[in-house]
Amino acid sequence: MVHLVPVDDPADPRLADFVRLRDVQLRKSLEAEHGLFIAEGEKVIRRAVGAGYPVRSFLMARRWAEPLADLLAGTGAPVYAADDAVLEKITGFNVHRGALAALDRLPLPPVAEVVAGARRIVVCEDLVDHGNVGAVFRCAAALGVDAVVLAPRCADPLYRRAVKVSMGAVFAVPYARMTDWYGGLGTLREQGFRLLALTPAADAVPLDELDLTGRCALLLGTEGDGLSDRWQKEADQAVRIPMDATALDRGVDSLNVVAAAAIACYALTR
Amino acid sequence: MVHLVPVDDPADPRLADFVRLRDVQLRKSLEAEHGLFIAEGEKVIRRAVGAGYPVRSFLMARRWAEPLADLLAGTGAPVYAADDAVLEKITGFNVHRGALAALDRLPLPPVAEVVAGARRIVVCEDLVDHGNVGAVFRCAAALGVDAVVLAPRCADPLYRRAVKVSMGAVFAVPYARMTDWYGGLGTLREQGFRLLALTPAADAVPLDELDLTGRCALLLGTEGDGLSDRWQKEADQAVRIPMDATALDRGVDSLNVVAAAAIACYALTR
Ligand SMILES: C[S@@+](CC[C@H](N)C(=O)[O-])C[C@H]1O[C@@H](n2cnc3c(N)ncnc32)[C@H](O)[C@@H]1O
Ligand SMILES: C[S@@+](CC[C@H](N)C(=O)[O-])C[C@H]1O[C@@H](n2cnc3c(N)ncnc32)[C@H](O)[C@@H]1O
Repeated sequence: MVHLVPVDDPADPRLADFVRLRDVQLRKSLEAEHGLFIAEGEKVIRRAVGAGYPVRSFLMARRWAEPLADLLAGTGAPVYAADDAVLEKITGFNVHRGALAALDRLPLPPVAEVVAGARRIVVCEDLVDHGNVGAVFRCAAALGVDAVVLAPRCADPLYRRAVKVSMGAVFAVPYARMTDWYGGLGTLREQGFRLLALTPAADAVPLDELDLTGRCALLLGTEGDGLSDRWQKEADQAVRIPMDATALDRGVDSLNVVAAAAIACYALTR
Repeated sequence: MVHLVPVDDPADPRLADFVRLRDVQLRKSLEAEHGLFIAEGEKVIRRAVGAGYPVRSFLMARRWAEPLADLLAGTGAPVYAADDAVLEKITGFNVHRGALAALDRLPLPPVAEVVAGARRIVVCEDLVDHGNVGAVFRCAAALGVDAVVLAPRCADPLYRRAVKVSMGAVFAVPYARMTDWYGGLGTLREQGFRLLALTPAADAVPLDELDLTGRCALLLGTEGDGLSDRWQKEADQAVRIPMDATALDRGVDSLNVVAAAAIACYALTR
């Protein structure tokens, strides 16, 4: 039997992990400070728990307790139950997927360890959009990328929106974060990875003219400005996904980073 | 000289086009009823105006009047100027890109007209997420897709988020909306398009084994359930983008629709 703890005061301090989930600035500092993250929806919560993240507490509408009963009983974490209006007051949005869990982060492995057995990796420089980070992880999981490496400033894969968009792939694809942006690619090159800088630049080699055997690292740049000069210089090869001759007339000078990641990861599997 | 109309009352009826931009339900009905849409940010507003959409009015922080001066003077539409706090009260969010425009929709051409000269088209069944619709248009523009056709229930490409994610590609790629979901694909087949149903199903033909010459239509399904049975039956061929053998173990049974669109559109250009 699951023991539900009814709550009706949005200011209840036991619910502090779940406050204002749409306030990106607040959430970033709160989650970093307390070493926690939020998973939303039955499927994603199950994956997080399955991946070994300890649950701090659950918060949900009462109707969700039954479908999640096995999970709730298994973790032993407190289960707070509130009605929809109170849920909305706490979180700042209409929690229509019903169930939320606050989980503890686990220490990330070092980059060298995560890439040790890998052949194909994706390296994200400073992606800003959490949805894009989540989608890149989903591509990686679907297309057999072995690991993801993040630059120090890349957006957090465990941020709620990233987790959600990834459909839980952030729990399945091993990843690590560089501590050093400037020299970070050196570690990968020493491990024998060919560093392929993905860029729409006209003088880059077209993706389909490239030999993609051996250990390959696909470097993806930030949404606005793309890869930094430093990383472009450090890379072994600039690679472009050829766009149509009409793209510029249509006002489009690049693919979005998820589309680029998808095409390049797919090419790696061919 | 641009004549700015200062506003400080969030309830000012002249600002009705701009209210509660984050309230999807409200905006959907308001925009449909008044035949309008919202463009956000200098670049996107310029594209919308360049594409011939008539401006109803502008709303912005005073500091944006100068960089946009040529445009504001050119259209003759009223330019409402407010401080950031008032802007936030009207729209419901912090308008950090500064400038908004409300524009009139134009009548969409019939499907037959939009696809008449096309060789490669994308057909979206019932995509729900506006960001995904925008990203599909950006892929289409970047990779030389000639036109996009939408099922009757597919999310609106002129919804603010779709416009934004597309980077304005929704103004550059010709598109039309079917009036008939059940028989809609018939029109395309009559025009000589091969209907390729994109699906992760194991019994579909792998994308790279397909001959993609001739007139091709890529059919994309909704985020949750994929293509309807009806459309799958109507299609000439089910096509899958092969995923890695480890994907299912990693909890991923499909690509996100933007990733799938990117890979398939790219394959069409090869
Ligand atoms: C939106 S783009 C950035 C555009 C930026 N103006 C630039 O020149 O790189 C974000 C990332 O997607 C990848 N990308 C986008 N279009 C690409 C293309 N046609 N070929 C290769 N990579 C691309 C690159 O890694 C890029 O850094
Ligand atoms: C998130 S998927 C829907 C998944 C759904 N469970 C299904 O079986 O189709 C959304 C759309 O992306 C496309 N898609 C996703 N993965 C694909 C793959 N591996 N091959 C071809 N199309 C795919 C399909 O058009 C699909 O309808």
